[in-house]
Amino acid sequence: MKNVKYGKCIRCGKTYEAVPDLTVCECGGILDIIYDYDYIKTRLTKEVLAKRDQRTMWRYRELLPVEESTELPPLRVGWSPLYEEPRLAEQLGLKRLWVKDDGQNPTASLKDRASAMAVAKAREAGAKVIACSSTGNAASSLAGNAAAAGLETYIFVPSRAPKGKVAQLMTFGATVISVQGSYEDTFELSKAAIDRWGWYNRNAAINPYLSEGKKTVALEIMEQLNWEVPDYIAISVGDGCTIAGLWKGLKDLHAIGLIDRLPRLISAQAEGCCPLNRAIETGKPWHPMEENTLADSIAVGVPRNAEKALHAIRESRGLTVNVSDEEIMAAQKLLGKTCGVFGEPAGVTGAAGVKKLCEAGVIGREDTVVSVVTGNGLKDVANAIAACGDPITIPGNMERLLEAFAEKGIAVK
Amino acid sequence: MKNVKYGKCIRCGKTYEAVPDLTVCECGGILDIIYDYDYIKTRLTKEVLAKRDQRTMWRYRELLPVEESTELPPLRVGWSPLYEEPRLAEQLGLKRLWVKDDGQNPTASLKDRASAMAVAKAREAGAKVIACSSTGNAASSLAGNAAAAGLETYIFVPSRAPKGKVAQLMTFGATVISVQGSYEDTFELSKAAIDRWGWYNRNAAINPYLSEGKKTVALEIMEQLNWEVPDYIAISVGDGCTIAGLWKGLKDLHAIGLIDRLPRLISAQAEGCCPLNRAIETGKPWHPMEENTLADSIAVGVPRNAEKALHAIRESRGLTVNVSDEEIMAAQKLLGKTCGVFGEPAGVTGAAGVKKLCEAGVIGREDTVVSVVTGNGLKDVANAIAACGDPITIPGNMERLLEAFAEKGIAVK
Repeated sequence: MKNVKYGKCIRCGKTYEAVPDLTVCECGGILDIIYDYDYIKTRLTKEVLAKRDQRTMWRYRELLPVEESTELPPLRVGWSPLYEEPRLAEQLGLKRLWVKDDGQNPTASLKDRASAMAVAKAREAGAKVIACSSTGNAASSLAGNAAAAGLETYIFVPSRAPKGKVAQLMTFGATVISVQGSYEDTFELSKAAIDRWGWYNRNAAINPYLSEGKKTVALEIMEQLNWEVPDYIAISVGDGCTIAGLWKGLKDLHAIGLIDRLPRLISAQAEGCCPLNRAIETGKPWHPMEENTLADSIAVGVPRNAEKALHAIRESRGLTVNVSDEEIMAAQKLLGKTCGVFGEPAGVTGAAGVKKLCEAGVIGREDTVVSVVTGNGLKDVANAIAACGDPITIPGNMERLLEAFAEKGIAVK
Repeated sequence: MKNVKYGKCIRCGKTYEAVPDLTVCECGGILDIIYDYDYIKTRLTKEVLAKRDQRTMWRYRELLPVEESTELPPLRVGWSPLYEEPRLAEQLGLKRLWVKDDGQNPTASLKDRASAMAVAKAREAGAKVIACSSTGNAASSLAGNAAAAGLETYIFVPSRAPKGKVAQLMTFGATVISVQGSYEDTFELSKAAIDRWGWYNRNAAINPYLSEGKKTVALEIMEQLNWEVPDYIAISVGDGCTIAGLWKGLKDLHAIGLIDRLPRLISAQAEGCCPLNRAIETGKPWHPMEENTLADSIAVGVPRNAEKALHAIRESRGLTVNVSDEEIMAAQKLLGKTCGVFGEPAGVTGAAGVKKLCEAGVIGREDTVVSVVTGNGLKDVANAIAACGDPITIPGNMERLLEAFAEKGIAVK
């Protein structure tokens, strides 16, 4: 790869050749992929991009750690819509607001970006099997992207994962192991199995290429904004890999001169599980927390990518915000009703955070904000059903309809 | 609209000015929108399209019945991926096979194409409220597209509609009326309410513009195939509007010279509810049927757009195929495992039909086929869960994993 120099440990600084099955440093630290920006600068410009037809995450190939000869995975991942939301901006009291709907990916979450990258690298490694542990979205995205590419998958999920996510990945032909325990237990068993059988590893905090896939969400946001940098980008945070990837993408663009400043990150976590935000807020090292939130995709008590995530939030002079489950479900309805975007609970946690920061007066009239929705609400309808209540239910006649409207106080226009 | 001549009754031939709130003919017949192809031919060419940046259904605006000044609805509808599937083609014994994944739309079904059109026309009509009856997908797509555009919705669903679909549309802020009865009862109540309150009508067999939205799936397929016409296009059929729209799009392209021949349609219905296919197969008028299939989106015993659908199938020298619920669920797993595409039961019924026709030797080695997946599997996980069975469920330790693999006969590579 002419564009990649090496993998570098974020803890001890040791460097490693960027082989396809790169994992962690011998010191246990997570690796970061280091690019040759001088080389990339000569290849990837705004003009080059403007002429490029491809509308997937792979349109930024110069900034991605894949060989030029690597066959790309089949599913159409990335280039999700970025909607400007003037009515919601008005309602929240923001200058401008955009929603990036990453639920519009093949398996309906941002994780497709990482899984597509995993499939590309597994192909480079000559692997036939990929494995991971996941709260759900990484699992189904890996299963889908691997199935499309003809690769086998072994997937470890905590037994609390919503049935819809499990059904989705089983439909993709994955061998699924549901672990009766926490995400931590699930992760450890997957690690042991991967070590034992030598499968290609798609655990996001171990495989340094996955953040590089996720960073494409940042590249797209900036290109879709015509390179005009917003003040803030808000996103939900669980394991820490996604916000780290987001920041990496922004720093890449800054390094090659496609943007002239960096936005501040808004790290949104659930009140019941916010070990990373708590570390930022207290200035102390992070400590494990219970996983008390219905936002299952970010219910991560032991974040595996804490270092990169904390670094990203701090380096961006980021804001932290912790929201209750009620605030999350209110944000789901708000985005649905105002924007026509249906996000899963973890998917709308960033937007819940933006709302809370607006109400607290931390951000407001002078600020421009992008809120990333990381997964589709159809992934977890049980919570949406609970939040919505029941529809008006009647037999098929007009008298009963009029009665029902009257009872509910609906004044029909 | 310079490109539109008028609406014309498909039964009696009477023509109507193409006003935004056009419904049915005074004779009860459904209208068809008639275009000025000579005018359109001078505007829409392959070269013009190749240079066009927009990747939504609206890139074909010259072939769509909207005023040039109409503000388009906000959600990104259309330009869903068309995947070539060489492995599945090989397995089924086809020359070439493509899957058009229309579950990759904002609310996860092809119906977004019709709902986006409804929103555009409602805006032209100056309406603030849109209503419809639906087995589910039209409902949630209308709710989502209308919410994004700031319009109110009243939606009538049969009480058997899957909870996920209902939760989705309630999250979009719709007023939902769940009717204890058949789709027919639901439709009649919605019609009465629309007449009473003068809401904009998004019932597909009444509003002639909706097929025009749906036809964009055909326009995209042909452009994505670089205008090389396949032998067959397969799609599931319920109310009849979708296959009628598909055919309309193909005929449009033929009329303006963008394609030089027409494919044959494959009309796939559920064995337990196939009134349209039965009419074709017996050569007799269609008769209502029970709604005995788990593919809820096509469980339509009284198809509201029978005439247009039957005409489309016949004119294309189309094939009919009726599949059992077991064949539908097998197709869901086949598409998931081989293509990484997760379709809802009705969504994969077209593919189930293709498989059945291949096995019967009706189509084969000489044939090229496009199969349209009309909705995302996440819309109805209950059936997927039932079809998939349970995952391997164990506590988090390696001994139990080895035992479980041994029990299930899984030989790990």
